[in-house]
Amino acid sequence: MFLPKRFIEVSARLSSLPGIGPKAADRLVFYLLDQPEEDIHALAEALMAAKREITFCRRCGNLAQGDLCEVCQDSSRDAKLLCVVEEIRDLSAIEKTGAYRGLYHVLHGRIDPIARVGPGELQLDRLVERIRLDDVREVIIATNPNFNGDITAMYIAKLLAASEVRVTRIATGIPKGSDLEFADMFTLTQALEKRTDVQT
Amino acid sequence: MFLPKRFIEVSARLSSLPGIGPKAADRLVFYLLDQPEEDIHALAEALMAAKREITFCRRCGNLAQGDLCEVCQDSSRDAKLLCVVEEIRDLSAIEKTGAYRGLYHVLHGRIDPIARVGPGELQLDRLVERIRLDDVREVIIATNPNFNGDITAMYIAKLLAASEVRVTRIATGIPKGSDLEFADMFTLTQALEKRTDVQT
Repeated sequence: MFLPKRFIEVSARLSSLPGIGPKAADRLVFYLLDQPEEDIHALAEALMAAKREITFCRRCGNLAQGDLCEVCQDSSRDAKLLCVVEEIRDLSAIEKTGAYRGLYHVLHGRIDPIARVGPGELQLDRLVERIRLDDVREVIIATNPNFNGDITAMYIAKLLAASEVRVTRIATGIPKGSDLEFADMFTLTQALEKRTDVQT
Repeated sequence: MFLPKRFIEVSARLSSLPGIGPKAADRLVFYLLDQPEEDIHALAEALMAAKREITFCRRCGNLAQGDLCEVCQDSSRDAKLLCVVEEIRDLSAIEKTGAYRGLYHVLHGRIDPIARVGPGELQLDRLVERIRLDDVREVIIATNPNFNGDITAMYIAKLLAASEVRVTRIATGIPKGSDLEFADMFTLTQALEKRTDVQT
């Protein structure tokens, strides 16, 4: 090999990250070696600090620095509206729309019969407790509209049936901007069944 | 923002690296937070160690840990053959062919009249000194076959004209595997002018 061992080591570590191949990793190391030592140090420190300081929000399961996450700390949000998601990346997708001003509940998983993940492994006791203690008005179930997400949604709906809370599910149908001819038949069937009245 | 400040900081630092956009950076941080603390620590340490320990080879200008690079330390290489390249990434490209067993000389730049880079900013004194001291037999000029690379090559050829050393230039022509119809006219003109006899 024509490169120093340290170069090869860093490149190998970077190329083990998702979306970074061996060529991109080499290019990153060449680039990083050209940067001032302070910048490398700051990147390394920030990485370690993030790992050390970031945990899960005690209330909703989002990423947090400290006890509560940024969403739960935001007093302008509607605390009587909860959106239940499978993972933090789903919360992230909803936040990016800017269309939701309630709080979240992250399950950190979904019921998955094949992988033998049952409801006991999800944050469901906490959900029931929150609904009771915080006098929640509506729970929007935003698990993914696929097999595992749908059975998880159904389980949660049954779990909450006895309580006073309104339980809703995010709408499924044809994505905005797409063509009917490219929609799969299940989505198209759903879109027909869940048709809505046109407001005139 | 719905994510912790540390998350945003690390993501911003990663997205300033070449080839990593904001979405890929976020995905990397989510991934890294899922890894054990030891792995994050090892990556951060490796990065800092690389920056601290990697310098330039005293002899040829390649990346090195210590005084001499891996190529210059390899006694099986032909020390009487020098390949002159503009940058370490060019050395890297040649090494990957496995077709070259001599040593290198990295200029760390090229003559560039527009950017006002003259021959004095390249490692040319060292090149002349190496040729004399190490009794070099041949210098292969492998600067890029474009305007700046060509004038750099010409300058080096004139500089070495008085010495005994054989000076050669890498061949230009139609790339292997490509089609004549897609070659630019300068490359095609070169390929015609530099035609070689067919061995039968």
